Amino acid sequence: MDKSRYQKGLKLLEKIDGKAGENVISSLQDICPDLAKFIIEFPFGDIYTRDTLDLRSREVATVAALTALGNCLPQLKVHLNAALNVGCSENEIKEIILQMSVYAGFPAALNGMLAFKEVLIERGHEKCF
Amino acid sequence: MDKSRYQKGLKLLEKIDGKAGENVISSLQDICPDLAKFIIEFPFGDIYTRDTLDLRSREVATVAALTALGNCLPQLKVHLNAALNVGCSENEIKEIILQMSVYAGFPAALNGMLAFKEVLIERGHEKCF
Amino acid sequence: MDKSRYQKGLKLLEKIDGKAGENVISSLQDICPDLAKFIIEFPFGDIYTRDTLDLRSREVATVAALTALGNCLPQLKVHLNAALNVGCSENEIKEIILQMSVYAGFPAALNGMLAFKEVLIERGHEKCF
Amino acid sequence: MDKSRYQKGLKLLEKIDGKAGENVISSLQDICPDLAKFIIEFPFGDIYTRDTLDLRSREVATVAALTALGNCLPQLKVHLNAALNVGCSENEIKEIILQMSVYAGFPAALNGMLAFKEVLIERGHEKCF
Amino acid sequence: MDKSRYQKGLKLLEKIDGKAGENVISSLQDICPDLAKFIIEFPFGDIYTRDTLDLRSREVATVAALTALGNCLPQLKVHLNAALNVGCSENEIKEIILQMSVYAGFPAALNGMLAFKEVLIERGHEKCF
Amino acid sequence: MDKSRYQKGLKLLEKIDGKAGENVISSLQDICPDLAKFIIEFPFGDIYTRDTLDLRSREVATVAALTALGNCLPQLKVHLNAALNVGCSENEIKEIILQMSVYAGFPAALNGMLAFKEVLIERGHEKCF
Repeated sequence: MDKSRYQKGLKLLEKIDGKAGENVISSLQDICPDLAKFIIEFPFGDIYTRDTLDLRSREVATVAALTALGNCLPQLKVHLNAALNVGCSENEIKEIILQMSVYAGFPAALNGMLAFKEVLIERGHEKCF
Repeated sequence: MDKSRYQKGLKLLEKIDGKAGENVISSLQDICPDLAKFIIEFPFGDIYTRDTLDLRSREVATVAALTALGNCLPQLKVHLNAALNVGCSENEIKEIILQMSVYAGFPAALNGMLAFKEVLIERGHEKCF
Repeated sequence: MDKSRYQKGLKLLEKIDGKAGENVISSLQDICPDLAKFIIEFPFGDIYTRDTLDLRSREVATVAALTALGNCLPQLKVHLNAALNVGCSENEIKEIILQMSVYAGFPAALNGMLAFKEVLIERGHEKCF
Repeated sequence: MDKSRYQKGLKLLEKIDGKAGENVISSLQDICPDLAKFIIEFPFGDIYTRDTLDLRSREVATVAALTALGNCLPQLKVHLNAALNVGCSENEIKEIILQMSVYAGFPAALNGMLAFKEVLIERGHEKCF
Repeated sequence: MDKSRYQKGLKLLEKIDGKAGENVISSLQDICPDLAKFIIEFPFGDIYTRDTLDLRSREVATVAALTALGNCLPQLKVHLNAALNVGCSENEIKEIILQMSVYAGFPAALNGMLAFKEVLIERGHEKCF
Repeated sequence: MDKSRYQKGLKLLEKIDGKAGENVISSLQDICPDLAKFIIEFPFGDIYTRDTLDLRSREVATVAALTALGNCLPQLKVHLNAALNVGCSENEIKEIILQMSVYAGFPAALNGMLAFKEVLIERGHEKCF
């Protein structure tokens, strides 16, 4: 195993969403730990650690893409949390999801928004709900 | 027609990519001018003009989504131009496309990158190519 | 807010599926009421109210598209109800879904059909089940 | 070969778009005639010939689905022709495509509309263009 | 009804996943038995019975496609069972899903892998979990 | 750069389709050589070199997935060549594409088959055409 890519990826993943990182690793531990390893090494170790783009912009891009694709809500929720963790405001995230109505249609935007509502409830943003 | 939404949308579209705006309107003029009207009114008049999210972040989100969806290259090229026009650097845009390899696979990222190459050539970024 | 587009959209939405309209508005009320507003204004206020296409044909088109896309079952269920409400027969709707096996594959058609089964049960079409 | 399904399918395909039927058969003749056979037997022989849904509604559904999916423009063009052939008006077809902006986004609707423009030009609807 | 296609399809479906075949038929019995008939006749009666490709390769192809499409998890689970039934090893199936990270992104691969974990648990592969 | 992953990937890529490997690297050289590096390192260096699945099965899976996704024809053509290069017969590949009609619809299968026809012509399989 390439320790440095894995270590870099794990550190980055912990930074943007520590709990999600642990969850992914543990959910894959008995079925395919290699997939967990690759998820940490390539997306987080190789891509998110590059300094060409700030983490906030990376999460803007990921939230937009996963909302538009619309078939990976669990991963969207991870990145909605991550977006909040790296400095996107609630309103900015809502706006990114809202904007996806233009490119992927209203159902995709609506499902993304309801996923964000769940995320905010899970984080205890009680004032709003 | 709601003049103010249309006027606001047209102004915003001209700001982010004047030529593309004219092209869309003229390409639809004899087949369905109402679609051109709606494109200007809703995405640009209603959405892009909201001040909750800066224009640069909007284009980060759009480039990410269109690269990931992968079935609308002409519109991706419009927004690759727009992203450059509102302040994304070449390297940031390449990085957004590169990151889509994680969420939509390498073919989507590769096709997005080659679309960006075409955009840069069309803009006369000759030094690079 | 553009009262007339919103009022027209709300009226149309109530006509094709009153309960769904209320549900969408209330589910978005505390997270992003602007998305609810846009859903009512643009799809229902601007598009569904145009008289170029009858409401039955609009629902035929929407049921077909959402079945084929396959990643927005809650919205498909709304429009399966709407299709019944504006005059499509049960058998016609089944046939539209069945036909999607040709264009989006059998899994999409099967999932669409099971969604329709849920809709019919919820509406109390007890004789059939 | 099941003659009756094939014969029924071929007859139906000729009715809705004779030229397209021949083109599909000839384009597949030397690479995979069995695919041509299956296209005629199942979609056209088994599905389109069922009398539960009128041909016009079938084409409304197909144009909607293919516009929304957005990755099969040649087949969309076949069915835009077919929709005209079985009695949809130009304006109705434009409206179906326009409506897809709601469910699959504006790029999908725009690409569908430009495909329809090509179809109309190919059919010699010269007055409009 | 074309008895021979249906009978051939049913026999083939029973061979690759008897329980799933019964489930599909019974789930559609009261809503659209014709869809069940078509599923047995065309995919299984016409396609899977052709001897050009061995059943193991057919299931490799299907598992790959359904993992990549990502919007039909119930059908993916049927074919994960079928792949095991026709001779793919657990490790081969994990590898096919893992490989989809390249073509459809990591979320699709992750969701496919977790679906396979459910399948293995349902089959009582207790040693692993 | 991790030499060994890159070297392993390049060697593997040359084995399955030498020309395509060079083409990808050169097409990305002046726009984003890092994407070329990642394509060689992760898909080919990390994934295709694992011995859990034979190369022929890998290409069966990839051809199926890219045909079903339907929005990356250039990459599909690369892997249609690769499938032939690692031992799939022409008829097996046609059968995989044909089978995708079941899971992604007939337009996807038809477009995949016509892409394969182009590949065979480019390879000079003159007898067939």
